[in-house]
Amino acid sequence: MLQEEIRRRNLGTLLRHVHLDGSVSRAALAERMGLNRSTIMALTLELTAAGLVREDAPTDTGRSGRPSLVVRPRTTGVYVLAFDVAVDWLTAARVGLGGVILDRRWAARPRAGADLDRVVGVLAGFGRQLHEAAPPEAVCVGVGASYCGMIRPGDGTVRFGPDLGWVDQAFGPELGRRLGLARPVPVGNEAHLGAVAEQRRGAGLGFQNMIYLHGDVGVGGGIIVGGKLLDGDGGYACELGHMVVNPHHGRPCGCGSHGCLEAEVGERALLDAAGRPADLFGRGALRDVVSDAGRGDPAAREALHRIGDWLGVGVANLINLFNPGIVIFGGMLRDVYPAAAEPVRARIAASVLPVARERVRLRTSALGDDATLVGAAELGFSELLADPLRGVVPAL
Amino acid sequence: MLQEEIRRRNLGTLLRHVHLDGSVSRAALAERMGLNRSTIMALTLELTAAGLVREDAPTDTGRSGRPSLVVRPRTTGVYVLAFDVAVDWLTAARVGLGGVILDRRWAARPRAGADLDRVVGVLAGFGRQLHEAAPPEAVCVGVGASYCGMIRPGDGTVRFGPDLGWVDQAFGPELGRRLGLARPVPVGNEAHLGAVAEQRRGAGLGFQNMIYLHGDVGVGGGIIVGGKLLDGDGGYACELGHMVVNPHHGRPCGCGSHGCLEAEVGERALLDAAGRPADLFGRGALRDVVSDAGRGDPAAREALHRIGDWLGVGVANLINLFNPGIVIFGGMLRDVYPAAAEPVRARIAASVLPVARERVRLRTSALGDDATLVGAAELGFSELLADPLRGVVPAL
Repeated sequence: MLQEEIRRRNLGTLLRHVHLDGSVSRAALAERMGLNRSTIMALTLELTAAGLVREDAPTDTGRSGRPSLVVRPRTTGVYVLAFDVAVDWLTAARVGLGGVILDRRWAARPRAGADLDRVVGVLAGFGRQLHEAAPPEAVCVGVGASYCGMIRPGDGTVRFGPDLGWVDQAFGPELGRRLGLARPVPVGNEAHLGAVAEQRRGAGLGFQNMIYLHGDVGVGGGIIVGGKLLDGDGGYACELGHMVVNPHHGRPCGCGSHGCLEAEVGERALLDAAGRPADLFGRGALRDVVSDAGRGDPAAREALHRIGDWLGVGVANLINLFNPGIVIFGGMLRDVYPAAAEPVRARIAASVLPVARERVRLRTSALGDDATLVGAAELGFSELLADPLRGVVPAL
Repeated sequence: MLQEEIRRRNLGTLLRHVHLDGSVSRAALAERMGLNRSTIMALTLELTAAGLVREDAPTDTGRSGRPSLVVRPRTTGVYVLAFDVAVDWLTAARVGLGGVILDRRWAARPRAGADLDRVVGVLAGFGRQLHEAAPPEAVCVGVGASYCGMIRPGDGTVRFGPDLGWVDQAFGPELGRRLGLARPVPVGNEAHLGAVAEQRRGAGLGFQNMIYLHGDVGVGGGIIVGGKLLDGDGGYACELGHMVVNPHHGRPCGCGSHGCLEAEVGERALLDAAGRPADLFGRGALRDVVSDAGRGDPAAREALHRIGDWLGVGVANLINLFNPGIVIFGGMLRDVYPAAAEPVRARIAASVLPVARERVRLRTSALGDDATLVGAAELGFSELLADPLRGVVPAL
């Protein structure tokens, strides 16, 4: 019984290595897992028989001696469906084992007025299309969704979705029902999932302590502490966008407060600071400010400097609190940060204690707008990775 | 070999339960550790033989049936020396297994001008006195120290001690040398150790996610995430006192920045706000402001309201970031918070997202000014608890 448990855990660990690395030699697996080669071979054979991995001769390494076989994920044969409800779009994707996006569907969505039924309807439709377009022998092993709001852990309920005005909406359960699943779709907050994705497959690779700032209309956060997402007592931690940085003269925030980081550096703040019309919004408008600043437009430059100063206050505070190895700017901040890096760095130099800023890196997201989707896919794969043999039950 | 390792780990776990709880029945130990009673008995006998615990018949429980023996720490026979370098005093104590302060020495210290040699000299003298006053059969099993500054993990070097102007001072090594030990004394930041102490023995008991704010001249922090102290990449996390809350109109801070939380709510800020003379300082002066406010003095009330408002900005930010179960006010904030609770709560109501403030508690420290000393003692006990039989080597 204990032996069986150890075997299942080892299967999961091996599959996780293969899933995250894409291809790993048997020799490397033996070393990383502290097991001998014959055990690795036995585990690999089981996962091969279950259709989860395959083994190849490695491409010539130039070294002498018998080369170790390379284990790879069966990317096209084993997939999850990943969904992303972002502020400006709905996306669904078929993501293969190994984290490869194989196929996707995308639709713009209006900023307001989309109720649960409509959103779930679009996503479920995408899900069916993706499933039908998959090769007949491919197996769906899980589902995961990202949502731009606060999610109750466990059941996928949206506690608070500010841009759609959702409060306590049964998003995960309803999406599960519409996909014909027997249970809710696991759902995560977009910035949390983006952080996990960046840490596993992006700019945060190898970092155990990491801060991910995700900009859309507002600013969300995913904070990795000791390799794990900071969740707090109820799963509602990481709300760095509602850190008040301007307590007495702050802009009003969607949350009802004033001077929150997202109120000072969010989309509206930047567009207002650049003197753009009040009815302009969206990623395109933001990028216009950035490119205008690049061409020397004084109003755009001044706006980016101002937003960068507030962003710097927030980032400096986060570095003092978390002493992270890396800070990653994602979502629309991926466009904004490079144009506002100077005031951000100035605030860090002024306010972060030297010992904590000695080694911290500032980077933009490597996965870009796919970060949240890739994170949702990781959520979908988690059950398979926890118990690879039990997990191979068609989820759809 | 594996069996021996399991046995040692079990000995440590059992001793930790007894150390933290004070007295635990064999039956309760069996249940908590998932082991049968005969294994618990064998482990207890080993720890008894090593002089670490003793077993007593329980006081009458009123229940029928044979009562389970109660295991207690040998508090007076097994101790550590704990040291505390605080802003206004130097303390040393003999702390018995079970966390009981058995004896202590205390000296006021000036706010400035104390160099490493002088501080270590006083503490080492205290250490020798405490050791000599101990019963001859008592065994010293460890040493630990708390310091009011940033500490490099591992070697007890003070990276930055703002109030004494210490930079890269070999405090732990030097204290170890002066005590005649073969190695450095482990040292922790006072707020980190205070947090650990409050979580294990104080107001934070049972909480896995906790924020401890420690006020002295400034404000330090210890943040518990998932039961563990947040350390960050280099061990310099938790610097909540240098969270900038007033970026454009802030008071200068000792760190060189402006508008840090500690600059706005620290001792000087409160005394200035209350119109006290610039040469007045210390805990007594702070308590005078609090008691004057209690008697209705308008300047003192206004000062506490103002400090409470800034404190509230900081605490609200921390709740949004960490979603803790409890926030604990220690050090001088133990005096200040009750008199400034209203503006703190108002800021939380205004700025913390409802889902994160649903269940958070705000409390003052249960251990008071002993929190840091108790935390230093826990540091001293850590080696014994990791390996109880190897640990019983007189450290002094």
